Amino acid sequence: MLNQTVDLDRTFQALADQSRRTMVERLTWGPASVSELAEPLAMSLAAVLQHVQVLESCGLVKTEKVGRTRTCRIDRAAMTVAEQWITERRRTWETRLDRLGDLLDQVATTEEKP
Amino acid sequence: MLNQTVDLDRTFQALADQSRRTMVERLTWGPASVSELAEPLAMSLAAVLQHVQVLESCGLVKTEKVGRTRTCRIDRAAMTVAEQWITERRRTWETRLDRLGDLLDQVATTEEKP
Repeated sequence: MLNQTVDLDRTFQALADQSRRTMVERLTWGPASVSELAEPLAMSLAAVLQHVQVLESCGLVKTEKVGRTRTCRIDRAAMTVAEQWITERRRTWETRLDRLGDLLDQVATTEEKP
Repeated sequence: MLNQTVDLDRTFQALADQSRRTMVERLTWGPASVSELAEPLAMSLAAVLQHVQVLESCGLVKTEKVGRTRTCRIDRAAMTVAEQWITERRRTWETRLDRLGDLLDQVATTEEKP
C-alpha cells in the first residue's frame, strides 16, 4: 500500500509535464533513443535526459545503454496503476449516480400511484 | 489543445498527492463539507482548505459556500480528460503489441512451410 502510494505520487507528478507526456506518447509507439525523444522537443539533450530520469525513477520508462546509445521503452506497470486508480474512482461515482437515478425513478413511480 | 494541456498538467499535479487523492476518493461517494474531508486526515482545516483550492483550480472539484459551510463535490470533467489520456496511450501500445504478435505468427507460419 505504501509502495503503491509512493508510486502514484511520483507517477502523477511525472505525468504533470507536457514534455514528459510527449515522450511517453512517443514511446507507446515503440522504443526510442534519447536523441529520438529529443527531436520534437525544443530543449537540450541534457534536459531531455533529466526528464527521462524522472520517468525512469517512477517506473513509467525503462532504459538500457548499449555503447553510446541509451534506448528507452515504456513500462506499462506504473501507467496501469495510475489508470486503475482513476478508473476505480469513476466506477464509484457512476455507481452512486446510478443508485440516485434508481431512487428518483422509485419516487416518480410512487407519486404516479393514485 | 492548449487548454487541455494546461488542465492535464494541473490535474496530474493535483493527483500527485496522497491527501488530495484521499479527498477525491471521499467525494466520489458523495458531496462533503471541508470539515468532513478533514476527518480522516491528520492536518489543520486551513491545510485541507488549501488542498481543496488546488483541486478546485484544476477543475477536479467544485465548491459552494452556504452560510459557514463550504460543500465540495466531484466534477468529473477533469478526471475524464486525465483518464482518457492514459487510456489512449494504453490502446496505442496494446495495438502495437498485437501487430507485433501477428508479425511473429506470420514468421512462424512461413517457417513451418516446407
